[in-house]
Amino acid sequence: MSNIKNAIVGQSGGPTAAINATLAGVIEGALASDKIDTVYGMRYGIEGLLAENTVVLNGIFADDKNTRLLKQTPAAYLGSCRKKLPSPTSDKAEDIALYEKLFAVLEKLNVGYFFYIGGNDSMDTVAKMSVYAEKVGSDIRFIGVPKTIDNDLMATDHTPGFGSAAKYIATVAQEIIRDCAVYTVKAVTVIEIMGRDAGWLTAASAIGRDISGYAPDYVYLPEVAFDMDNFLDDVAAAFEKHPNVVIAVSEGARLADGRYVGEATQSGSVDIFGHKYLGGTGNTLIDAVKARFGCKVRAVELNLPQRCAGHLLSETDISESVRIGAAAVESATSGVSGEMMLFERAQGDEYVCTIGHKSVMDIANAARCVPREFINERGNNVTDACVDYLKPLIAGEYPVVFKGGIPEHITL
Amino acid sequence: MSNIKNAIVGQSGGPTAAINATLAGVIEGALASDKIDTVYGMRYGIEGLLAENTVVLNGIFADDKNTRLLKQTPAAYLGSCRKKLPSPTSDKAEDIALYEKLFAVLEKLNVGYFFYIGGNDSMDTVAKMSVYAEKVGSDIRFIGVPKTIDNDLMATDHTPGFGSAAKYIATVAQEIIRDCAVYTVKAVTVIEIMGRDAGWLTAASAIGRDISGYAPDYVYLPEVAFDMDNFLDDVAAAFEKHPNVVIAVSEGARLADGRYVGEATQSGSVDIFGHKYLGGTGNTLIDAVKARFGCKVRAVELNLPQRCAGHLLSETDISESVRIGAAAVESATSGVSGEMMLFERAQGDEYVCTIGHKSVMDIANAARCVPREFINERGNNVTDACVDYLKPLIAGEYPVVFKGGIPEHITL
Repeated sequence: MSNIKNAIVGQSGGPTAAINATLAGVIEGALASDKIDTVYGMRYGIEGLLAENTVVLNGIFADDKNTRLLKQTPAAYLGSCRKKLPSPTSDKAEDIALYEKLFAVLEKLNVGYFFYIGGNDSMDTVAKMSVYAEKVGSDIRFIGVPKTIDNDLMATDHTPGFGSAAKYIATVAQEIIRDCAVYTVKAVTVIEIMGRDAGWLTAASAIGRDISGYAPDYVYLPEVAFDMDNFLDDVAAAFEKHPNVVIAVSEGARLADGRYVGEATQSGSVDIFGHKYLGGTGNTLIDAVKARFGCKVRAVELNLPQRCAGHLLSETDISESVRIGAAAVESATSGVSGEMMLFERAQGDEYVCTIGHKSVMDIANAARCVPREFINERGNNVTDACVDYLKPLIAGEYPVVFKGGIPEHITL
Repeated sequence: MSNIKNAIVGQSGGPTAAINATLAGVIEGALASDKIDTVYGMRYGIEGLLAENTVVLNGIFADDKNTRLLKQTPAAYLGSCRKKLPSPTSDKAEDIALYEKLFAVLEKLNVGYFFYIGGNDSMDTVAKMSVYAEKVGSDIRFIGVPKTIDNDLMATDHTPGFGSAAKYIATVAQEIIRDCAVYTVKAVTVIEIMGRDAGWLTAASAIGRDISGYAPDYVYLPEVAFDMDNFLDDVAAAFEKHPNVVIAVSEGARLADGRYVGEATQSGSVDIFGHKYLGGTGNTLIDAVKARFGCKVRAVELNLPQRCAGHLLSETDISESVRIGAAAVESATSGVSGEMMLFERAQGDEYVCTIGHKSVMDIANAARCVPREFINERGNNVTDACVDYLKPLIAGEYPVVFKGGIPEHITL
């Protein structure tokens, strides 16, 4: 291919507070590269590429102020999607037509470098696109850049976006524990945290115990089967110490038979308008606590704010998220393709994080759970090793710029 | 009484992110006053006084660092309670004994100045204590200092603690709207916000519309009867504009017949452990939306974080909260008693807030709701006048000090 090509970048999967910081890194890297001319953005991920719904980013981000705002804007600036591509070796006519269309659009835009920022499913897209490229002899380079608050991608020490979500969770857990401690009445508060399969985010609620001494009494992750009787005994033991018990539980906590703890309440109830009611893990637990102890109970679902709290960003996370985006451009223009960028943590006491890359084939469609040695024997808390792993990721406060009392963002 | 007396301060009612800033103001004012010697804190409000559970604050807050930390520590440093005193003119033996006990403890501690930081119920306590003082000829001065995230106290332009809660809500609403906008799929997200009777906090979700253009499509307050058919028609109208509809609703939204919208789901459902399930306003609304539109739905209850988010504080709120605490000391030592401190807003475009006080008898046990002129005719949003009222209260970011990645607090 000619020495100078265009680049295209897309975002995919669930929003995070740092996915736009990575986008900013890709844009900054591409604008600075003498091998890249136009930088296109796909609107709504690969779906936007298919629909030729793209935008030229060079002009918008010639302005440093916009790049700065992009780094602190949560959710996905370009829009996202959850599309799964068919097998690139499929011989179905519609599948072949889809890939032909995608590559025709890339050809038309003279794209030499393709960057896709996302989680597991997005790495699957990168893997398939690069397999197809090889099949048809395209020299477009495909690079995956990780992002997910879930921290569940293989091969990387941690994922961009996780640190900021973890910082929000550790902070809010401490605040909730303080809030609950003001009365002397016996009460149990259950904080329900995201993570269907991996408990990393729930584990983050425990970080404060090593810093301020404020952490939930117990932390239950999906990696260990949840036992209701053990849980209630745990609560009884906590009541021996203080009247205000706070529990952190993953939305994905599962019983030994494999059912989600929260699955239980998903049928039966109908409201005055005749609509069925859906329950959740936190609500199931507080009902059980109320039945056994008859005390005050409350469930707090951290919900969307834990993945989009752009007002409280880990400086470590945001700077690493920018760096990994820029590194992706450097790798692509050096000839790398079909790989996912990743973080490597140096051994030793000091936290040092370097950036590498690995074949995306080894990464897509597998999940990295919290290892058993990060969870205590009874399965009701994380170990010190886990807290030590988590602490550096939430370090530092990214200096968010506000306007009129709320964080300033950029909108496409 | 002798020229130099001791002071006692207590906190009562629900926690806020600013109640400790007011405590810091009282402490700073009392330490600086030549009319006050020892400054006592009641543990767990008036209950602590009754149990002689008090603490000397002079030593702890001789250190400026501790005072600074207190200003940014959410919830109630001294602990709180929800005790309601009997009538001070009651002739029941047990009621008389209770007041005699309270005043004996105050006498024993040589207290000349009594400060109580709280909401409606706490002002009731101040009113009763000062009536009793007059009855028995005590010259102890009783001052109420307002705090409530609900902003529903009479006589004051706004309440300490409201501005920080409003800032968190406006910020998180904007973040949720961005999060929801990343996909092109039709979806309705309902944000449920605190406020059983007054809609001030829910109104705060709309502040962004004047700053960033990001605000919920509709805002439903408890001050206007909620109509499910009108609501669903509103959602249909919003879908004409964009696929991602975001609604803010007060937990206290009520149907015309007076029942809470969320009351509906509070019976019938039983989970696999046999426990009854409690619903909520947000869940009721998304069920109704799903039934009519069949689209993706999600309810986000802001829950405890909205009242204890010490990591995101309004500079205006915290500095005013400190000031009103110090002003309370000045008033008490000048001879004022039986009054609540309050904020007055100067007329004109520039926001200027001064501090006054008013008889607590006129304030206790009444609530200040959002006036009808702050709500649009259809009752599905707030007016520009409402946003103009709210904006100055969230202005400025209080410089929160972090340690190890989470905000640093002080614990008694």
